[in-house]
Amino acid sequence: MPISPRHPRYRSLVVRARLADATRSGLVVPEGLIAHGRGETFDYLLGERTSPSARRAERAAAAWVRAAARPVLSINGNVAALASAEVARLQSTYPALGVEVNLFHRVPGRAERVRDELRAAGVTDILGVRPTARIPGLPSDRARVDRRGIWVADVCVVPLEDGDRTAALRALGKRVISIDLNPLSRTTLTADLPIVDEVTRALGHLADDLARPLRGGRPGRFPPFDRARAIADALATIDRRIKRAAGPRWPTAGSRG
Amino acid sequence: MPISPRHPRYRSLVVRARLADATRSGLVVPEGLIAHGRGETFDYLLGERTSPSARRAERAAAAWVRAAARPVLSINGNVAALASAEVARLQSTYPALGVEVNLFHRVPGRAERVRDELRAAGVTDILGVRPTARIPGLPSDRARVDRRGIWVADVCVVPLEDGDRTAALRALGKRVISIDLNPLSRTTLTADLPIVDEVTRALGHLADDLARPLRGGRPGRFPPFDRARAIADALATIDRRIKRAAGPRWPTAGSRG
Repeated sequence: MPISPRHPRYRSLVVRARLADATRSGLVVPEGLIAHGRGETFDYLLGERTSPSARRAERAAAAWVRAAARPVLSINGNVAALASAEVARLQSTYPALGVEVNLFHRVPGRAERVRDELRAAGVTDILGVRPTARIPGLPSDRARVDRRGIWVADVCVVPLEDGDRTAALRALGKRVISIDLNPLSRTTLTADLPIVDEVTRALGHLADDLARPLRGGRPGRFPPFDRARAIADALATIDRRIKRAAGPRWPTAGSRG
Repeated sequence: MPISPRHPRYRSLVVRARLADATRSGLVVPEGLIAHGRGETFDYLLGERTSPSARRAERAAAAWVRAAARPVLSINGNVAALASAEVARLQSTYPALGVEVNLFHRVPGRAERVRDELRAAGVTDILGVRPTARIPGLPSDRARVDRRGIWVADVCVVPLEDGDRTAALRALGKRVISIDLNPLSRTTLTADLPIVDEVTRALGHLADDLARPLRGGRPGRFPPFDRARAIADALATIDRRIKRAAGPRWPTAGSRG
């Protein structure tokens, strides 16, 4: 049944339908759908738009990507299903940013499925389909990366990443930029530069910023980022939203004893 | 790979794995996984336990079920996957409560799959597998109910229900008791008696309360319930949790410029 554009949650429903289809085709795993649902709630509580604080984090991330010798963007099934178009735009804007398939749930054929989704959107030079290195300290499959990509990267952009992997990348001395709607996830709490924003908005803004003439973030010079402040800002945004919701316009139905 | 009981999110991971498996078998649909993820975030924000306010709602719900001439509990794929054991206990405690399979995503064979899951847990007399009536005002499949169950019910207990269906049941003059972790969902905002709690906890408490000797809630006498207060209480709980999270123990990682 087609989704009515008049539905109050139209955009959410369209994205959900896209992810559900992507599960049927094996691009997204069931665990990825549950993770998406968790993110949906946080996005709702954050007002479903990029906060000024998140926008600052995105600008800082663009400066870090510019400052990096070998920046890499990590792509899993959910990112490919939701944001392949933004990844393609980002790559054409800033070709030095490597793109690597990096799966938490590695099932035979799935890396190829993610690669194909990216390719269909116009992404080229995709790393990680046949991993050639292992990150220490992580169980088997979750550790597998590309020797030309994440393995040698100095800055890793990890959208919708797992907390253990974020910590393992950081332990290797890499600067980690996370994109995660949960301001309290282990990923957000562990990353050097956490972007608390929805993945298509964040990657789109990153592409916008990298398309502009250089301003700060020269090679090897990473402008400082106040991560504690970024997390506190996101929590404050949610807090305001909850307070507004608790206001006089609820509940909608009449009382009935 | 087995989930380590030492993982900080062990219980969540076990439930996720159970739902992911249930998707592979067709019991749960992909949209149900996304919905579960949304609930997970709210449960996290609510502290993953039954608040005193939710417990009061559960006690009121037990009184309403006792007061009802024909109470019915509606079961969808997520409820069957998560809480079949609690449904069985509830039914053996209070056999007058009808149990009806009621699907939002009706795919051939799925109602039977839900019935089988309930039966395996010990539930008997399961209605709704072959629906015989339609609720007015809802699109085709979503309207189908059992003429011996929801159609004639005066009180419907709807865990993890959709907002449109909640509204349609209410428009038919039924008293609707919802179980939904989202204090701002249309279901919660529409129900006569919204329980903002996790489904296995809520159904377990309902069974506890119905097992006790009668106290209030005589036939036809529905004790009043302050739904606006219940919703405000849930929002206040989330608010406290967010405020605590914004305290001094975050973030965990050191700052790095």
